[in-house]
Amino acid sequence: MQIATPYLMFLGDVPDTLAAKTAYGIVDWRPEWCVGQLRMPGCAADLGIPDLTLPQAVERGCRTLVVGVVNAGGVLPDHWIAEIVAALEAGLDVASGLHVALSSVEPIAKAAAANGRALHDVRLSAERFPTGKGTRRPGRRLLTVGTDCSVGKKYTVLALERAMRERGLDADFRATGQTGVFISGKGVAIDAVVADFISGAVESISPAADPGHWDLIEGQGSLFHPSFAGVSLGLLHGAQPDAFVVCHEPTRTRMRGVEHPLPTIREVIDLTVRLGRLTNPGIRAVGIAVNTQALEEDEARKLLSALADEHGLPATDPVRFGVDEIVERLTAEYPEPRP
Amino acid sequence: MQIATPYLMFLGDVPDTLAAKTAYGIVDWRPEWCVGQLRMPGCAADLGIPDLTLPQAVERGCRTLVVGVVNAGGVLPDHWIAEIVAALEAGLDVASGLHVALSSVEPIAKAAAANGRALHDVRLSAERFPTGKGTRRPGRRLLTVGTDCSVGKKYTVLALERAMRERGLDADFRATGQTGVFISGKGVAIDAVVADFISGAVESISPAADPGHWDLIEGQGSLFHPSFAGVSLGLLHGAQPDAFVVCHEPTRTRMRGVEHPLPTIREVIDLTVRLGRLTNPGIRAVGIAVNTQALEEDEARKLLSALADEHGLPATDPVRFGVDEIVERLTAEYPEPRP
Repeated sequence: MQIATPYLMFLGDVPDTLAAKTAYGIVDWRPEWCVGQLRMPGCAADLGIPDLTLPQAVERGCRTLVVGVVNAGGVLPDHWIAEIVAALEAGLDVASGLHVALSSVEPIAKAAAANGRALHDVRLSAERFPTGKGTRRPGRRLLTVGTDCSVGKKYTVLALERAMRERGLDADFRATGQTGVFISGKGVAIDAVVADFISGAVESISPAADPGHWDLIEGQGSLFHPSFAGVSLGLLHGAQPDAFVVCHEPTRTRMRGVEHPLPTIREVIDLTVRLGRLTNPGIRAVGIAVNTQALEEDEARKLLSALADEHGLPATDPVRFGVDEIVERLTAEYPEPRP
Repeated sequence: MQIATPYLMFLGDVPDTLAAKTAYGIVDWRPEWCVGQLRMPGCAADLGIPDLTLPQAVERGCRTLVVGVVNAGGVLPDHWIAEIVAALEAGLDVASGLHVALSSVEPIAKAAAANGRALHDVRLSAERFPTGKGTRRPGRRLLTVGTDCSVGKKYTVLALERAMRERGLDADFRATGQTGVFISGKGVAIDAVVADFISGAVESISPAADPGHWDLIEGQGSLFHPSFAGVSLGLLHGAQPDAFVVCHEPTRTRMRGVEHPLPTIREVIDLTVRLGRLTNPGIRAVGIAVNTQALEEDEARKLLSALADEHGLPATDPVRFGVDEIVERLTAEYPEPRP
């Protein structure tokens, strides 16, 4: 999947900012791609970028209308359909993170065909992949893993990409979730892939690369999450990372959506190494990324310092304190390219 | 997915018996459901059951035409389409293990609609499942796991079902692969499920049961296979087995389709216990099932005896020596129902 940039961000008439969470994530990380927003009467979200009509968006070079919102009930409201059709008629592609396939909505499918425009359903993978092979590919890879879902795995790799590029390192974010796909303009929502092809899909989004290149691969779920561990394991095997960063949220007491307690960071490191060795015998942890939002700054610093001591790894909150220490560890530990 | 029985087995004009492997598996395990076979001129396979015309099959009570064959190239040949349409017109449902969806073939879709018949694509899961919850469900469960793919996991659970039922035990085979789904008339080809729902799908095919009941769940892949370990882990977590049997093929030197060596039986036991504890803290191995086809009988007995000593578990070849020892271990180790 390759989405044409730049984007016109469609917000519909969502009742709150939470419904536009994906759109905010895209604007945060790719402001240069987000030329404007298209909001309908009653819309309660505002991305802080110019409101544009469709003709204005086309004039400013927009290539794709991005539907980065969710609608309560999961259906596509009729008045959104009309706006999406109008965008196709104005010459834009449409990329959507909705549960419903754009092509399954007849007026949208017709307008796309009539105007020769592409429809991208980021959440629904129709793409077929080869099965994973597990053979070594040139290039370096880093994966974020977690003590749970939604603990900052995407944010951490994006922060690493930014920091590494600022130092002139050759590094690319590799998206495995829907917001990530919008942010990179490509990738695969790995949880939407057919089970047999999880590791194969990851191999295809992080192919053989220049030996000095770093792919920074967005992790998903957790090896300890009873709903999604299979996805996390297929992702780990396909990514064959040299290095991984453990992401954690210290105030959570239960894993998201289930009754299970969170594993410790030590357990995550041990199991990731044990299982990851299958496709990369040299795999090791290079850092800990903690979401300390719920803590006072001195509390946060104390926690990070204790974690760093306990594990012998740089520990940081990427939002609050950046990821420089992890990048330094990475460049120190992997001075050589990986042919 | 619930397939109406009994079956008329469709063999088309396959050029050899290997192309009809699924059909042979169904006849082996459910001869009472396989009323007859429908073969076209040039067919080189023979299931050893009566050749029936469509009217004869209907007269003998057949409910479903089972397409348990593969065609070289993966396409559905035109002359098969005509026969499938005729079956729908004769009043049969059609169930297929082909890669192509029956409903995507226009004449088949039309004939099904016109005659009010069901189309089942066993290999393509359109069904949506809840995500797995990992919470304890009443009833006992056994899962077969493997040192590799295709090492007898399905055969072993089916042999256990037969042996346990002969002793009056309440046990059901739970299918997770396409041949298994035909054999049980229901189940899910777990490798065809969307990645997010692997463990949820397994929870749904092995729901809460009578505390004394055993679900015998067909394993898939291997935790050590770089292509499919994610499927195996989601299956393990969803199955939450009390007991597992390790299946093995002693002459194989590389894992199927990849360059990786086979793990040892000990490694499989250790990792299955370590990962399986997440959803069933009491998980343990109750037997080893070895495909000794390539060995002389005395060699086979020697190997099994050595494995039994090494692991303190019954070790058998289910085809050659049956599974009585494993059933005895099971009844001895789990005398109590699991509420």
